[in-house]
Amino acid sequence: MTEELTVGVLGYRFMGKAHSNALARLPMFFPDAPDVDRHTLVGRDEAALAEAADRFGFSQVETDWRDVVDEVDVFYNLGPNHLHAEPSIAALEAGAHVFCEKPLAPTLAEAEEMYEAAQSSNRVAGCAFNYRFVPAIRYAKGLIDDGELGQIHHVRGRYLQDWLADPDAEWSWRNSKELAGSGALGDLGAHTLDLARFLVGDAAGDLTRLSGHLRTFVDERPTGDGETKPVTVDDAYTAQAEYENGAVGTFEASRFATGHKNDHTIEIHGSEGSLEFSLERLNELEYKSSESRGYETILVTDGSDPYIDHWWPPGHVIGWEHTFVHENYEFLSAIAEGEEFHPSFADAYEVQRVLDAIERSDERGEWVEVDRD
Amino acid sequence: MTEELTVGVLGYRFMGKAHSNALARLPMFFPDAPDVDRHTLVGRDEAALAEAADRFGFSQVETDWRDVVDEVDVFYNLGPNHLHAEPSIAALEAGAHVFCEKPLAPTLAEAEEMYEAAQSSNRVAGCAFNYRFVPAIRYAKGLIDDGELGQIHHVRGRYLQDWLADPDAEWSWRNSKELAGSGALGDLGAHTLDLARFLVGDAAGDLTRLSGHLRTFVDERPTGDGETKPVTVDDAYTAQAEYENGAVGTFEASRFATGHKNDHTIEIHGSEGSLEFSLERLNELEYKSSESRGYETILVTDGSDPYIDHWWPPGHVIGWEHTFVHENYEFLSAIAEGEEFHPSFADAYEVQRVLDAIERSDERGEWVEVDRD
Amino acid sequence: MTEELTVGVLGYRFMGKAHSNALARLPMFFPDAPDVDRHTLVGRDEAALAEAADRFGFSQVETDWRDVVDEVDVFYNLGPNHLHAEPSIAALEAGAHVFCEKPLAPTLAEAEEMYEAAQSSNRVAGCAFNYRFVPAIRYAKGLIDDGELGQIHHVRGRYLQDWLADPDAEWSWRNSKELAGSGALGDLGAHTLDLARFLVGDAAGDLTRLSGHLRTFVDERPTGDGETKPVTVDDAYTAQAEYENGAVGTFEASRFATGHKNDHTIEIHGSEGSLEFSLERLNELEYKSSESRGYETILVTDGSDPYIDHWWPPGHVIGWEHTFVHENYEFLSAIAEGEEFHPSFADAYEVQRVLDAIERSDERGEWVEVDRD
Amino acid sequence: MTEELTVGVLGYRFMGKAHSNALARLPMFFPDAPDVDRHTLVGRDEAALAEAADRFGFSQVETDWRDVVDEVDVFYNLGPNHLHAEPSIAALEAGAHVFCEKPLAPTLAEAEEMYEAAQSSNRVAGCAFNYRFVPAIRYAKGLIDDGELGQIHHVRGRYLQDWLADPDAEWSWRNSKELAGSGALGDLGAHTLDLARFLVGDAAGDLTRLSGHLRTFVDERPTGDGETKPVTVDDAYTAQAEYENGAVGTFEASRFATGHKNDHTIEIHGSEGSLEFSLERLNELEYKSSESRGYETILVTDGSDPYIDHWWPPGHVIGWEHTFVHENYEFLSAIAEGEEFHPSFADAYEVQRVLDAIERSDERGEWVEVDRD
Repeated sequence: MTEELTVGVLGYRFMGKAHSNALARLPMFFPDAPDVDRHTLVGRDEAALAEAADRFGFSQVETDWRDVVDEVDVFYNLGPNHLHAEPSIAALEAGAHVFCEKPLAPTLAEAEEMYEAAQSSNRVAGCAFNYRFVPAIRYAKGLIDDGELGQIHHVRGRYLQDWLADPDAEWSWRNSKELAGSGALGDLGAHTLDLARFLVGDAAGDLTRLSGHLRTFVDERPTGDGETKPVTVDDAYTAQAEYENGAVGTFEASRFATGHKNDHTIEIHGSEGSLEFSLERLNELEYKSSESRGYETILVTDGSDPYIDHWWPPGHVIGWEHTFVHENYEFLSAIAEGEEFHPSFADAYEVQRVLDAIERSDERGEWVEVDRD
Repeated sequence: MTEELTVGVLGYRFMGKAHSNALARLPMFFPDAPDVDRHTLVGRDEAALAEAADRFGFSQVETDWRDVVDEVDVFYNLGPNHLHAEPSIAALEAGAHVFCEKPLAPTLAEAEEMYEAAQSSNRVAGCAFNYRFVPAIRYAKGLIDDGELGQIHHVRGRYLQDWLADPDAEWSWRNSKELAGSGALGDLGAHTLDLARFLVGDAAGDLTRLSGHLRTFVDERPTGDGETKPVTVDDAYTAQAEYENGAVGTFEASRFATGHKNDHTIEIHGSEGSLEFSLERLNELEYKSSESRGYETILVTDGSDPYIDHWWPPGHVIGWEHTFVHENYEFLSAIAEGEEFHPSFADAYEVQRVLDAIERSDERGEWVEVDRD
Repeated sequence: MTEELTVGVLGYRFMGKAHSNALARLPMFFPDAPDVDRHTLVGRDEAALAEAADRFGFSQVETDWRDVVDEVDVFYNLGPNHLHAEPSIAALEAGAHVFCEKPLAPTLAEAEEMYEAAQSSNRVAGCAFNYRFVPAIRYAKGLIDDGELGQIHHVRGRYLQDWLADPDAEWSWRNSKELAGSGALGDLGAHTLDLARFLVGDAAGDLTRLSGHLRTFVDERPTGDGETKPVTVDDAYTAQAEYENGAVGTFEASRFATGHKNDHTIEIHGSEGSLEFSLERLNELEYKSSESRGYETILVTDGSDPYIDHWWPPGHVIGWEHTFVHENYEFLSAIAEGEEFHPSFADAYEVQRVLDAIERSDERGEWVEVDRD
Repeated sequence: MTEELTVGVLGYRFMGKAHSNALARLPMFFPDAPDVDRHTLVGRDEAALAEAADRFGFSQVETDWRDVVDEVDVFYNLGPNHLHAEPSIAALEAGAHVFCEKPLAPTLAEAEEMYEAAQSSNRVAGCAFNYRFVPAIRYAKGLIDDGELGQIHHVRGRYLQDWLADPDAEWSWRNSKELAGSGALGDLGAHTLDLARFLVGDAAGDLTRLSGHLRTFVDERPTGDGETKPVTVDDAYTAQAEYENGAVGTFEASRFATGHKNDHTIEIHGSEGSLEFSLERLNELEYKSSESRGYETILVTDGSDPYIDHWWPPGHVIGWEHTFVHENYEFLSAIAEGEEFHPSFADAYEVQRVLDAIERSDERGEWVEVDRD
């Protein structure tokens, strides 16, 4: 691991900032992480791009990702969903390792192409399901894998936001089927479905069958210039599902859940114990063990907890952004050491199959198999 | 309201105790309630019945309800589900007012007969959805009716218990389709569906379409005498649904939710505000108003809160059993004053239609209309 | 225990109602409790008294307690504090068992007389520290007595109400030193100090030394007839203290804690574990055991929990008033069986010594010994 | 603000890491902050120091602070308490701006010298009470300053940790009066007292009189080499106090509060509203306004909240370390713009006067004036 990895990043707003920060923080907190050269930042608005590159520590900028994918060791695709497939595939084909924002693609077909491109390459292809890297989630995963919950019976995931509850909230690409693929389903539900799979995939197996439902509450929204555009994606989705082992899953997300900003919760009940996690209190895990009478509130900030020895003493809580540091650490280390990284494009493709099944089920009004064949 | 109402009660265990207590407490706390004569207690085990009658303040016992229904003004049917229809209908036909435990019946057909018997009589026929009588729920209903939540977008109800999570927990009538009709669905889900209907029925309209799912985790259970019996009902159900106004409903109950004893929660999101209620903290209501930034925890124990002026000063919390006192007060007052009582058999029949739709949907694996026609 | 105990009760408002209710509920829920004849209700306002007697189930009324104390087996003194000593002592001297509201008396001198009267009699003399009878508190006491918390280091008790935060709230006897003895200190602090003593008295010993502080925020209040009267008691008190075993105690109460209605909390930290209890969630206990990482929330409503087998199944919460049922059950059972009852006048006198020490310390501005000698 | 500020930092462990991280993060998130050159890192263990300098981004190391204080623009004194006075004063005299960890000094005399040195210089002298820079605290301060709480009646602060509850936990400089000045009092209580002063200093005035208490539970501890050393500081302190405006304050900290890792809470009750804050949930503020019935849980992560526009969208929580970024931003900006910074040495000296008063009171066993004169 003697060489520096050159990194190109497409996208310089929210996610660009989150990943640039993660890259910048690695040397101080994860000194065994590979060295990274923040090489090129890619975007369309040249002025904003230049300002961002300066702040985020990139030495170059480009307005066309095509000029970048074969110039860097690692390509971060943080663009909107409709820009996931082509640049990611091109980068893989150019020999770059790729890290792509979630959901993998707007459609299952594109996701499949991406997955196949990743399989055909010998590059590391990761997808940005960052909530796998919350220490409390890792700790929960350990409890489940150790059998502390016994047989899994229930998985319940929901992701509640409220930024569209106001019918006059402005239209954005996230409201367009063409640009985003889906709405709350792909944006929020993808996180939940990956997180559930990460936690119980080994213990309960895959989701096999499900019934999904999509709902759009407000059909068009103002664009800010006096016009309106149609909302062609869901504002909320729900799903009920069966796991391979017989467990029951229920999933839900909304952008209309007044009073909830970023409220991603997952709850798991097994024959021996239960777990509850909420993203807005991400340092905490609620755990009902076979020994306890009620749920205990564990502050997952001890030195022995996942990743915590890199940070601060017990009780000195970390934030949302730390999940990106952990994620980038694992991703870059996998590249440097020639190991697998999860969540991979293969993992993200599995999530995409579930997203697709939910959409199919919604169209047909009936239960569907996740497996299309 | 000068005369005393004579009351006959079928059932002397859990529900018999809860209602007897409620009747006994009315004079001290609701002095304007009609006078009640706890006349006859009905059951099969003569020794246990006699002991119960003595404790519960009944002057007579009978082992056959047929000998009671035409002897009393009011007949309480607190027996297991398969004993709801015949005695209730006979009592109505004999001219008694009837109060029946929930769910109304094991099947929609029986529920319909009961509903029609109630319609044909001019008696008060009430069903025991006691959670309508929690002060915090009444307070919540007031907020919704006053439009404080704006347009309703989401209704989320779940009822979690864990007494069957142990596969060796004993078989009871509650595990039998013949005796109970359904499992978690009718026992717990009926409560949730009635509560949701009470709260948002006016604001969001009826549930029109839904997709339901039933699941049995353990197929047979020990009977205590070395044998086993089959479990022919669901251990858990889930449902997703549409309201008349376009709102989305999700519902779930389980007897396998390790760590949850009697955890009945309902959450409602509207365009202007949100509400959350949990039965295990029944004195509290979580309320996000249009004026507040987050949910406020309201201790619904002020003198101005529903029913509270009958009880104790602010902060002196009431318990689960108080809902029965309120329920009986309303039921008996309706009889005395010749007014309507809700939840009526008509209300309970509406719930039964939803239970039936969930079962139909589960059988077919597709969305169904709640309306069979 | 063949005979019925005749009971006379002084006071027919809040406490009169709470105890009458408790007496009325015993036969149904605690059938082995002694039979009670609610004999005479004592008060000054004849009309209100008659109405109350009718509701509370008393067969007679009297306006002078002197006419009652030698006519009943048991005398309940539920009057304001300045009426505690004389009637209670007279009743004991007349051979009645006595149950007196808390605090025992407005002054230590009167409390001592009451205590001595109790000692000289062979009657049961109980004081109404009802929070000892919360199931969660009994459960907590069991954990402490079993050594689960190890050596006790910290005891922290506070009782927060807000009914005087409004400077225009009306004057009542509770604002008068002559009638009440003290304010928040005796009304609320007495509860806290008894509860702490009940829980850790065996494990940590007595409070030996303390520093107390009293504070009156509003010096006079309207009487409702256009006049004002002076507030001659504390609106809030604080105290810091040492236990025999070296533990540290901190105590506080206020009638000016905006947003808190009846928020009585106690927290205990030992070398091996910790406990937290809050009266507004009285069915719950927060417990950090030596085995758990965080506090677990125990819903103390299982059949194996103290008193719960008399009530309802797990998760069916009880209320504030149930503590009175338990308290009366224990008190009357002690009378019937010739056993001790706690909290006795002796226990209440120990609390009064601490109240007195807090007042002495406040006057002197220095630490004082609880023991005056 | 055209020049870069050169910075020397004494201390390279916990606080050295926290501040180095804060300095490193400023350019990306607070681009208008002054440029900083992480110039020299100071420590005694040369190997560890070199490794730390490399990770923390310092170009030079020194083992004697005397060689640094006149070489840098800004001197960060992050050493143990007994090393606060001399290097800080020397740095001020050498013309450096100084930032010193809390508490300002082990003794009031040294704190006074430091304060006077700061007054005599025209340099910025800041003290590291970082909790002033939590967004929820800033937001709370705004509510109080806007009069939303009305007249302040109660301030309650406590800081609970448990790392010494085990009697075999190892001795460190934090257990030595000579090296630390005091124990929980100076380490934790100083934070609480500064935070309370920040929040209510304008609304309630200064603490004028108080009664303090110190307690050491374990008198000696193992050193790790088979020996023991005496514990000469407090393991816990408590204090009760009066504010200028008549409000009551209670304060407490412990290193023996089993189950609490870094549980710093502050609660304030006014005539119109109340606030509660807990460091372990630092993104949240509990607020009872004059309009609400209960406390609302505000997630203080909106773009309009203090500092949040520099970070992430609503609901994407920040962590403990972010308080250091805000603190350093304000401190360095004050230097660059020639403005005041708070908390200054003057502010820290005010805290030290209260620490001293608590110690004096504990020695004398009586209330003392905070003002020694």
